[in-house]
Amino acid sequence: MLEQLKKETLEANLELVRRGLVLYTFGNASGIDRASGLVVIKPSGVDYDVLKSDDMVVTNLDGEIVQGKLRPSSDLKTHLALYKAFPGIGAVVHTHSEHATAWAQAGRDIPALGTTHADYFHGPVPCTRELTDDEVNGDYVLNTATAIIERFDGIDPIAVPAALVAGHAPFAWGKNPHDAAHNAVVLEAVAKMAFMTVLLNSQCGVSKTLLDRHYFRKHGASATYGQK
Amino acid sequence: MLEQLKKETLEANLELVRRGLVLYTFGNASGIDRASGLVVIKPSGVDYDVLKSDDMVVTNLDGEIVQGKLRPSSDLKTHLALYKAFPGIGAVVHTHSEHATAWAQAGRDIPALGTTHADYFHGPVPCTRELTDDEVNGDYVLNTATAIIERFDGIDPIAVPAALVAGHAPFAWGKNPHDAAHNAVVLEAVAKMAFMTVLLNSQCGVSKTLLDRHYFRKHGASATYGQK
Amino acid sequence: MLEQLKKETLEANLELVRRGLVLYTFGNASGIDRASGLVVIKPSGVDYDVLKSDDMVVTNLDGEIVQGKLRPSSDLKTHLALYKAFPGIGAVVHTHSEHATAWAQAGRDIPALGTTHADYFHGPVPCTRELTDDEVNGDYVLNTATAIIERFDGIDPIAVPAALVAGHAPFAWGKNPHDAAHNAVVLEAVAKMAFMTVLLNSQCGVSKTLLDRHYFRKHGASATYGQK
Amino acid sequence: MLEQLKKETLEANLELVRRGLVLYTFGNASGIDRASGLVVIKPSGVDYDVLKSDDMVVTNLDGEIVQGKLRPSSDLKTHLALYKAFPGIGAVVHTHSEHATAWAQAGRDIPALGTTHADYFHGPVPCTRELTDDEVNGDYVLNTATAIIERFDGIDPIAVPAALVAGHAPFAWGKNPHDAAHNAVVLEAVAKMAFMTVLLNSQCGVSKTLLDRHYFRKHGASATYGQK
Repeated sequence: MLEQLKKETLEANLELVRRGLVLYTFGNASGIDRASGLVVIKPSGVDYDVLKSDDMVVTNLDGEIVQGKLRPSSDLKTHLALYKAFPGIGAVVHTHSEHATAWAQAGRDIPALGTTHADYFHGPVPCTRELTDDEVNGDYVLNTATAIIERFDGIDPIAVPAALVAGHAPFAWGKNPHDAAHNAVVLEAVAKMAFMTVLLNSQCGVSKTLLDRHYFRKHGASATYGQK
Repeated sequence: MLEQLKKETLEANLELVRRGLVLYTFGNASGIDRASGLVVIKPSGVDYDVLKSDDMVVTNLDGEIVQGKLRPSSDLKTHLALYKAFPGIGAVVHTHSEHATAWAQAGRDIPALGTTHADYFHGPVPCTRELTDDEVNGDYVLNTATAIIERFDGIDPIAVPAALVAGHAPFAWGKNPHDAAHNAVVLEAVAKMAFMTVLLNSQCGVSKTLLDRHYFRKHGASATYGQK
Repeated sequence: MLEQLKKETLEANLELVRRGLVLYTFGNASGIDRASGLVVIKPSGVDYDVLKSDDMVVTNLDGEIVQGKLRPSSDLKTHLALYKAFPGIGAVVHTHSEHATAWAQAGRDIPALGTTHADYFHGPVPCTRELTDDEVNGDYVLNTATAIIERFDGIDPIAVPAALVAGHAPFAWGKNPHDAAHNAVVLEAVAKMAFMTVLLNSQCGVSKTLLDRHYFRKHGASATYGQK
Repeated sequence: MLEQLKKETLEANLELVRRGLVLYTFGNASGIDRASGLVVIKPSGVDYDVLKSDDMVVTNLDGEIVQGKLRPSSDLKTHLALYKAFPGIGAVVHTHSEHATAWAQAGRDIPALGTTHADYFHGPVPCTRELTDDEVNGDYVLNTATAIIERFDGIDPIAVPAALVAGHAPFAWGKNPHDAAHNAVVLEAVAKMAFMTVLLNSQCGVSKTLLDRHYFRKHGASATYGQK
């Protein structure tokens, strides 16, 4: 089970490289085995082209290393806090993908401007507030998660599987590593299109009705997209 | 005949991938055999890299599946309605290509700003109005076509082989699948250049005379471009 | 001699493909043998990936075909008129490269904003006026050259080896096909950087002194760049 | 020792090509052996795809050629002056990478807008003033370094390992050629994201506290990023 999760987590990390979402050792993906409460995460600062399944680090939800010889990603605590706060998710991906990061740096939510967005995100992709100096000087990586969780008050993290951290970059998640990486890739495409859209027309957006229609075409019990 | 159309339709779908117009399973191409009234279309949500000629779904113009084991593209009804309304076209392509989609999301026609545009589109690429809530909640996919057809009142779909659906993305068409995919690829290039052009000069455009000159250099009885 | 020029002209055409300056059959390069007054040019509308040295069309300066079975590029007359007006050049390249075309569509000269520009273009890359309706309806392809030549009144085409045709796209030239293609590639890079620069600062530019310094570092008798 | 430095310098030059930072023969990287005071630098105007370790030129800090048959990069004097002024650096890289060059041409510092920036640059990447006409007409290449060094009055070049030269392009540096090329690559990514960010929000930036947190997470005695 854990070996399979390691493979899937490695594969999700490599998908980020293939899709141009990460530069050098930037970015990280993790997955959780909900039964055992064990988390598999990319090691910190290792080149993707030498990354192997066995390099993945296994920790428990308290961040104690259970398996693996390498240091876990420096963002581990953000991943763990998201797993605790959002019980429905099975994987987390963090990148500094260029367009999503530009929105995060601008401190702006990515508005729902079209059906590509609506197919994946049931509403704007929210951007957190800035962290206070105390939060930055304190348990910073944990506080990053806290800002995301606070921002999702009233938002279903399953229906909006990504957040922007102000002045930083995006986090995306999903039911498994493949799904989380997929959401991170689509987020970047959506961010790029939204960037161009607001330059062409600063006043635009789709109706709640269209947002619902597209989101529920791909998600939930009455989804009709794809093969059975 | 149908086997040949399946191959051509598959090939058009793959051209969209090669040219970077689609991400994952986004997008779809179809072709019609006007003699039999049968339509060949990409199946819904199948990865392009495993897509085979035999995976193509064959339907009649009422959308009834005549051949194939997979579900057709979820946009099938838009394709069928366009075939009925525009008798001169033999293929339809739908993508979420980034720049054309940005114009669609901005709700703006792509103006004719240069000869690249004029070589392919004899006038602006029109953007539809937004659908009403009733249209979205009703037969949405069909109503998407209705909005395109309504917008083409007074526009020749052969001379302007593409439309933008507001808040959604482009549709392009042509006399066969190769031609429709080609138009979709050029539309994306034209959309990208128009995006940059309006940022450099919000007031510009080509004369009707230049538009005519370039369009008719490549199209119609007196075309002079290419080999005989 | 002519066989060598055919090879060099083919190679220049292929360089445009490799550098992403052309889409499908867009674009064309030609070269001239000044001794015989014969011009070698790409055939019209032939796919680059099947283009062979023997497909090149040879014409005299009046546009009469001397060798070759295919139709020459539809822009032949522009090339010929440039060869007649600018005796110092040995090759002409036409592309619809995206960023240079955006400037042409915007009807704006590309200003000299930095040393990359100054290394190749000794002053702004000028954009022509729009053609009149009579010019478009008349000998359009020839009149395109006329507008370029008129715009170069007082500008040395050797020192500024490119022009933008308003509402159309760039032409570049050089002492031979390799050089002309090289200038077209650098023009596109310069156009892209200038596009971003004016969005960051609408009021900027380099001094005449810096322009001179960089241009003459690479060109003329006292050039110091590269190997002897 | 010198043979090793030649290999590392060649490799840094090639990294610039792989990452799309240079076009044709643009750009150059050098490294210094502090013990002997010898500098290894790319030759001027040689194609990257034929560049060999033995083509590297070795000079002393006065610019006298000690080894090698080719002319050194025309920017040699800038490199040498930076080595003299910044004793902590071991390599210098110069590119005309598109986004960093756009900021340089705009004459603007790249502000610290997010953690990607903060991970590498402990404050804005400063842009020099323009050179005076006398400086351009005088020892121009040396004066380029003088403007950088003057601009770094009060800035630690180890903590901010890059500068923009107004109207020109970026220089980056590091403790060795690999490190300097890495910084040049990240600078380009940071410049691209900053470009988009300021278009989305002209008023933004990260706090000094966040800047410190991220910078010192990767640099200095208490760094926690990567493997031990």
